[in-house]
Amino acid sequence: MTHHPELRLPGLAYGGDYNPEQWPEEIWAEDMRLMREAGVTMVSVGIFSWALLEPAEGVYDFARMDRLLDLLHENGIAADLATPTAAPPAWFFRAHPEALPVDHDGRTLSYGSRQTFCASSPAYRKAALRIAGALAERYASHPAVVMWHIHNEYGCHNAACYCDTSAAAFRRWLRARYGDDLAALNHAWGTTFWSQWYYAWDEILPPRATGAVPNPTQQLDWRRFCSDELLSLYTAERDVLRATDPGIPCTTNFMVMQNFDALDYWRWAPQLDVVSNDHYLISTDTESQIDIALSGDLMRSLAGGPWLLMEHSTGAVNWQPVNRAKTAGEMRRNALAHVAHGADGIAFFQWRAAKAGAEQWHSAMLPHAGTDSQIWRDTVQLGADLAALAEVRGAAGDASVAIVWDWDARWALELPSQPSELLRFQELVRDWYAPLWRAGIGVDFVRPGDCLDGYKLVLAPSLYLVDDAGADNLRRFTEAGGTLAVGFHSGAVDPNCHIRLGGYPGAFRDLLGVRTDELFPLLPGETVGLTGDVPPGATADLWSERVRVQADGAEVVASFADGPLADVPAVTRHGRAWYLATHPDPATLAALLGRITAEAGVRPAHAHAVPAGVETVRRRGTDADYLFLIDHTGSGAEIVADGLELLTGKPVSGTLTLPPGGVAVVREPRSS
Amino acid sequence: MTHHPELRLPGLAYGGDYNPEQWPEEIWAEDMRLMREAGVTMVSVGIFSWALLEPAEGVYDFARMDRLLDLLHENGIAADLATPTAAPPAWFFRAHPEALPVDHDGRTLSYGSRQTFCASSPAYRKAALRIAGALAERYASHPAVVMWHIHNEYGCHNAACYCDTSAAAFRRWLRARYGDDLAALNHAWGTTFWSQWYYAWDEILPPRATGAVPNPTQQLDWRRFCSDELLSLYTAERDVLRATDPGIPCTTNFMVMQNFDALDYWRWAPQLDVVSNDHYLISTDTESQIDIALSGDLMRSLAGGPWLLMEHSTGAVNWQPVNRAKTAGEMRRNALAHVAHGADGIAFFQWRAAKAGAEQWHSAMLPHAGTDSQIWRDTVQLGADLAALAEVRGAAGDASVAIVWDWDARWALELPSQPSELLRFQELVRDWYAPLWRAGIGVDFVRPGDCLDGYKLVLAPSLYLVDDAGADNLRRFTEAGGTLAVGFHSGAVDPNCHIRLGGYPGAFRDLLGVRTDELFPLLPGETVGLTGDVPPGATADLWSERVRVQADGAEVVASFADGPLADVPAVTRHGRAWYLATHPDPATLAALLGRITAEAGVRPAHAHAVPAGVETVRRRGTDADYLFLIDHTGSGAEIVADGLELLTGKPVSGTLTLPPGGVAVVREPRSS
Amino acid sequence: MTHHPELRLPGLAYGGDYNPEQWPEEIWAEDMRLMREAGVTMVSVGIFSWALLEPAEGVYDFARMDRLLDLLHENGIAADLATPTAAPPAWFFRAHPEALPVDHDGRTLSYGSRQTFCASSPAYRKAALRIAGALAERYASHPAVVMWHIHNEYGCHNAACYCDTSAAAFRRWLRARYGDDLAALNHAWGTTFWSQWYYAWDEILPPRATGAVPNPTQQLDWRRFCSDELLSLYTAERDVLRATDPGIPCTTNFMVMQNFDALDYWRWAPQLDVVSNDHYLISTDTESQIDIALSGDLMRSLAGGPWLLMEHSTGAVNWQPVNRAKTAGEMRRNALAHVAHGADGIAFFQWRAAKAGAEQWHSAMLPHAGTDSQIWRDTVQLGADLAALAEVRGAAGDASVAIVWDWDARWALELPSQPSELLRFQELVRDWYAPLWRAGIGVDFVRPGDCLDGYKLVLAPSLYLVDDAGADNLRRFTEAGGTLAVGFHSGAVDPNCHIRLGGYPGAFRDLLGVRTDELFPLLPGETVGLTGDVPPGATADLWSERVRVQADGAEVVASFADGPLADVPAVTRHGRAWYLATHPDPATLAALLGRITAEAGVRPAHAHAVPAGVETVRRRGTDADYLFLIDHTGSGAEIVADGLELLTGKPVSGTLTLPPGGVAVVREPRSS
Repeated sequence: MTHHPELRLPGLAYGGDYNPEQWPEEIWAEDMRLMREAGVTMVSVGIFSWALLEPAEGVYDFARMDRLLDLLHENGIAADLATPTAAPPAWFFRAHPEALPVDHDGRTLSYGSRQTFCASSPAYRKAALRIAGALAERYASHPAVVMWHIHNEYGCHNAACYCDTSAAAFRRWLRARYGDDLAALNHAWGTTFWSQWYYAWDEILPPRATGAVPNPTQQLDWRRFCSDELLSLYTAERDVLRATDPGIPCTTNFMVMQNFDALDYWRWAPQLDVVSNDHYLISTDTESQIDIALSGDLMRSLAGGPWLLMEHSTGAVNWQPVNRAKTAGEMRRNALAHVAHGADGIAFFQWRAAKAGAEQWHSAMLPHAGTDSQIWRDTVQLGADLAALAEVRGAAGDASVAIVWDWDARWALELPSQPSELLRFQELVRDWYAPLWRAGIGVDFVRPGDCLDGYKLVLAPSLYLVDDAGADNLRRFTEAGGTLAVGFHSGAVDPNCHIRLGGYPGAFRDLLGVRTDELFPLLPGETVGLTGDVPPGATADLWSERVRVQADGAEVVASFADGPLADVPAVTRHGRAWYLATHPDPATLAALLGRITAEAGVRPAHAHAVPAGVETVRRRGTDADYLFLIDHTGSGAEIVADGLELLTGKPVSGTLTLPPGGVAVVREPRSS
Repeated sequence: MTHHPELRLPGLAYGGDYNPEQWPEEIWAEDMRLMREAGVTMVSVGIFSWALLEPAEGVYDFARMDRLLDLLHENGIAADLATPTAAPPAWFFRAHPEALPVDHDGRTLSYGSRQTFCASSPAYRKAALRIAGALAERYASHPAVVMWHIHNEYGCHNAACYCDTSAAAFRRWLRARYGDDLAALNHAWGTTFWSQWYYAWDEILPPRATGAVPNPTQQLDWRRFCSDELLSLYTAERDVLRATDPGIPCTTNFMVMQNFDALDYWRWAPQLDVVSNDHYLISTDTESQIDIALSGDLMRSLAGGPWLLMEHSTGAVNWQPVNRAKTAGEMRRNALAHVAHGADGIAFFQWRAAKAGAEQWHSAMLPHAGTDSQIWRDTVQLGADLAALAEVRGAAGDASVAIVWDWDARWALELPSQPSELLRFQELVRDWYAPLWRAGIGVDFVRPGDCLDGYKLVLAPSLYLVDDAGADNLRRFTEAGGTLAVGFHSGAVDPNCHIRLGGYPGAFRDLLGVRTDELFPLLPGETVGLTGDVPPGATADLWSERVRVQADGAEVVASFADGPLADVPAVTRHGRAWYLATHPDPATLAALLGRITAEAGVRPAHAHAVPAGVETVRRRGTDADYLFLIDHTGSGAEIVADGLELLTGKPVSGTLTLPPGGVAVVREPRSS
Repeated sequence: MTHHPELRLPGLAYGGDYNPEQWPEEIWAEDMRLMREAGVTMVSVGIFSWALLEPAEGVYDFARMDRLLDLLHENGIAADLATPTAAPPAWFFRAHPEALPVDHDGRTLSYGSRQTFCASSPAYRKAALRIAGALAERYASHPAVVMWHIHNEYGCHNAACYCDTSAAAFRRWLRARYGDDLAALNHAWGTTFWSQWYYAWDEILPPRATGAVPNPTQQLDWRRFCSDELLSLYTAERDVLRATDPGIPCTTNFMVMQNFDALDYWRWAPQLDVVSNDHYLISTDTESQIDIALSGDLMRSLAGGPWLLMEHSTGAVNWQPVNRAKTAGEMRRNALAHVAHGADGIAFFQWRAAKAGAEQWHSAMLPHAGTDSQIWRDTVQLGADLAALAEVRGAAGDASVAIVWDWDARWALELPSQPSELLRFQELVRDWYAPLWRAGIGVDFVRPGDCLDGYKLVLAPSLYLVDDAGADNLRRFTEAGGTLAVGFHSGAVDPNCHIRLGGYPGAFRDLLGVRTDELFPLLPGETVGLTGDVPPGATADLWSERVRVQADGAEVVASFADGPLADVPAVTRHGRAWYLATHPDPATLAALLGRITAEAGVRPAHAHAVPAGVETVRRRGTDADYLFLIDHTGSGAEIVADGLELLTGKPVSGTLTLPPGGVAVVREPRSS
């Protein structure tokens, strides 16, 4: 990892996107006053300012930005200054129409929205580095500027472009990946199938719309390329910025949330000085607190420590079919849950709700209704809360369980022409994460090949694709005394998407002591009963397979109770290596994971019993632990605790009363 | 309004589209005989005759049309002669491929159907005016011709074209709208958002497919432009026809029915000499009588008086997934309901059912089965009915309630990126219209800024966008003693789609005496209870919001009973100004509107009690009133009435017996 | 029919697609050993080998294929050698990008999958005939080669191409169809409708995306053209192959299964020397045994005798949303059911499960798990079964019932703008086929105009389009003593899609003695009761119509019991001619067809009672009959039988015990 400058800002950062160019300048003074009232310490500026900053190619108008940064500085508010490259101006596309992206169906998209450009376009890259360089030159030394916010949500709307320029870039990437050896590519892709053998690099194209399904390895390499191609835009901008002042940290806002899968953030995170995330709730998710927790733990794992929440919302968003508002206290619980899971700063999109434009119905810190509003009062309250938690900054997570998360495995699992198209990586992982969350058990996320020292338990809910090194690593972990649980359809293919022959679950067959000769995915709505060491009435859906335990192999924990696989093992254990060959109902999965965590010696974040629905998370600082308690029951709880409750500043002795929907953060002595 | 010649035809017109070019000429004589048998007085001819009338550019073949018009005249049947411009011939597109339309995705559509041309194409416009001029020159003096039927269903299949020619036309329209001031456009569209600032007019495009959502004001202006662009085709043809004989009225058939929203008919209607409509039932609509009534009232309001029903169907159509036939008497009830709501003529698509072509399964006056058929017998009966109602011609409507209807508000409400995409303008209006219809209360439709003198009650079920003048007009109406009820999410934005700041419902905040700081749209299937002056068990769906009554503001009529907004006002009144901050269930809405109409002193069309399911509508002639009674119960009814029942020609004294599924029209003394 | 050489292979062929180029050659020897173990007699090779066989235009590399064919021959396994023309190599498309297909929306598809080429492309045709010729020249005399497998699944992914080259080919086809008479085309298409008259052949296009629905006859002719255009590719390749050795039979694999409708196989079958089929189960079909039976009977009828099953699957496929595995014994029942319905050979896609490529998750004879697997054991068992049935080869079917099946009628029924878009030809036919299958009644399929001698009963479940000759043929059949039953919406249009006027069901009005003046299709979920000679509680859905019996016409068997057509006839008989004017529920339809078959004197395949769920099928050889008994109940059955059971080789005397899920084939004396 390269040099990582830190964010020069005390305590937990607080703020949001600030787009004052949308408003007359007479409002700016009010903005400053209200930011101070709310305790805002940092705002992100200039994210969508390209058209105003560079009114014509190479012509700059920095006057407004000069005034803005000076004003922020005068008011003691730091600037996270953006390169505005997510939204090139109309004039750019008039001059460079070839920089418009082409979609899978060959349709050239128009400008007039945002993030609509070809990531491989030389003209775009040149223009992006030019404006980034101009900003660096002018503002690197400005006292308000504490961080560079590069671009915005890479991959959000333009994760892939299928134009000829992109095709050439894909070929360059492939030549690098396959060492300029076309035969190697042919073998990796299995192009003897369907007469797809390539005799020249120029014959290779993106997986554009074609008659039947395209080659799966081509599709997987395309996903890898698209992530890398955007990453190369990030690093190019970063290098331009660093060249001016390497002391200012660079970030870009990730989108680790349930509906985004375009980028392999394991490859991205090491390139960021500060890792930051955008997280929004899905209105139809009735337990979005679990998505927050999972995303936060994944972010902390990506960052290798604390991170920044760059965007979330005070209330409703505007890009879902129906945009649910937050209920009383929900925004505070959301924000502090992000802190609990590792965030060292909390920001919103955006400061002041827009009156025009595509996001006019997106909530903000200062709503359309103005300061006489619940949202504004909550915004002020949150500022005070974060100030009270300043000492939490830098505290680490606390986990003895690791869940394997891998974007290659995710992409490969969700390619077309699988046994079942119902499998969704993130849903499968969340299904396993949820019972641990309910039990108050801290979780890290890891790659298959990562160092697993210190973990008692590793879970691989869905690891369709795994390389040999990763599989070996997991085997060595169990040999060293660790407990491992693997979900169905794992170990099936290698990094080229080639099936591991000899029986499923391929790479894990011997480790798990089982061998499956045929897969039996279940139709939508179809369920199968389970029997054995499972709760009465246990069922499963989505998947089944004809498992046999190997000689001297696994023992059977539960079997299918009915259907074509009646009496076939469904859950097995081979010493400390468990296999779940199906998708149990939530209660059954919780019972199984309860047994597995207990046997592995995993302990929850809090030593004392906590009512169901109260989230408990521990962060560990240098000198103290911080126990976060978040009430999702709506009725509050009495919890055994001792220490100083930071949000109220009151000592807790014996029993803490968590108010309905409330949050408490108890400073405890550092645990051993 | 310009000179408006009238239709030179006595009584209520009766007829349909007549396409004899689809049949051998030996059948024409039979057509004449059967038209006379059915009492047909006018047919629309030539609507799709372009290819036969002009076999090559500038070469005409009028022989068949000559014979046809002569034959009609000999048989005493008037002609509504069409310009055939809705379907250019194949030769035209071979010569002018650039006149083919391009859709939102950049796909050039092919000819081979109908209404597939670019509205901004100079070649199309030139060709359309040429054939219109040739027809005018040849037939304006023909004694059969009583009306020009310009084009057909403008906007039905080609409401928008996204080609470069259309883009240039859009820019011309924008330059006119914004007084050639590009900064004004930028401010109106809010282009500081997402870096969309335009530095040259040429940079502006239609809202073509792009990466994320396009600018909302751009989209709204695009809808306005598309409507205006088609209108300019109409007025250009009309001017060509008028130049030859200004005494022949011009019409084009509107499509005021539940599934069409492309045109702002408030802007169109003043350009028509005779306002006419096409109306078809939706097979899945179990109360299509309400859509007929609503559409008829809206047509009468657009026309400022009587109008013509240019198309409806004797039976099933063929363009829905399943095309329901009409039940016994339903066609008669449909047609006479149109008359009740202001139609002075009734026509069908089409006279003789086609044996080939895209509409071969569309019903007609003379079905495939021939004259030994129920449809033919119903066709003949309807002709007699209309003859019996001849004196109704010219009678006005009768309404003390006005409902606000505005296409700008409709379009803006249904743009993407709203708080909820479930809101549909016409459904919201119909929800309020239905209980008035059930109560037999006459309704007009108005624009927000229209003169409201004479109305006791104005309803604005959905007025998301309103200009200041319109909002002021409604305020003045209440100040003058009128009662106003406003539906949720009204007054939110100005004509540029800019949100009115300071709290919702923006423009109506003070008038209604309430202020909402946050919107809480409800998910599909989600309901919330209501309490207060509402029926027991009252619920609401779609929408809720956190309303507070202002100091000295509204009183609370009903509140939310549960959910995150429990105890928050849901229905308020501020003197005579009511606000419905949610979407109550139908019974609750009916109860609320029952109270509101009663308090406003609104009286139903008939002074005596009428059973539920019997539609009552009043038309007011110069010398008499006409009370229409239509039985939708299927079992008939006894109704207190006095006068002459026109359809039977029998006097009614005290009690009228309405047969099951029947219709009666009672001539009463003119009401005061 | 031209000269038809036969397959030079004894008994029932057994094998599958063999794609050894996907594997290192060291595996080939194992393949040979295992093929011999399984009793494989013939494999299809080279289907997707174009890229390897012809690495550059006109440059061949036959070395691998030489070795492969020699190896097969050495091991006594015959080769069904494919022309690889279903998947042109990437180099071909780089050289001839104009050969890529264009879809309905004008989108040019990319290569990179398979079957993505324009069927009308001269470059493609030239290249296809070149490689076919080269293969013929090299391998026609190879002793392993017993059949040519031309192309693969014509029309599977590229049934239609809408490019300009295809448009020109369509026009050539139309000029031939209409005798170069453009007016004839205009009349056939009804182009006076919607101003579609064509003045030059060049004006005619494929039915590309357009504003509204395109002309229906244009669409129907387009379907006919697309089938013929692909057929012309087949015959061109066949002629090249025959020119080298006319003694080797040619085939191509049809796709007679429920979800494929692109080709008119009545026109194709006579061009094949050996008729072969691919058949796959649909995972959501809970009675796929009926689809197998129906498809098999249709294949036997197309072939005029036995046929080959070229592809089916040992287990799950990979192209459905969820791909169901087969249950115990299901694959054996499937394969032997194909034999029962006329297959003289059974093959699979494919021999060895692929580890890479788009079909890596498709099952095979040798699964990923290897030989220690249920599928491999079943594969070996099936080889033995087929060997035991060798004498069945060549035996004919046995049917006294014919069902009318016509692709023109199918295509026309499913065009847009019908009274109901819910009508699906194959579903309607299967609804009638199912009760006959349950009753063990043998069925042939026929065209309307085919010779019907020897049949007691003809069923026309759905014959929307019929020509006069076909209608006459059916009439003569009833006059000659045959029984006919016709389903609703039949006889409606002529071969040009013109409605037959005067009342429905058009062509069959007099034959059936009924006349319908109006159609009443039913909405999704809507049902109507039936009364009369139907089971209590009988209902119908999808369709109703206002039928009247003609004077001296039909008698009423059942009527609608409620709804708008209460008391209107729903099922009628006019002597031996039955009309079902609706879509009865399955039990009612079974009862009606039970009565009809009984009255027609139709007898089941087995003279003795057979439990429900046991399929019985008879094949008739020269010297013996073969009674197939297949248990679908899962619990086995006792069945009265006498003869030799071939699969066990044991004589049966009086009672045969069919094991659960088992199959028996009893050789009986030839029936009279």
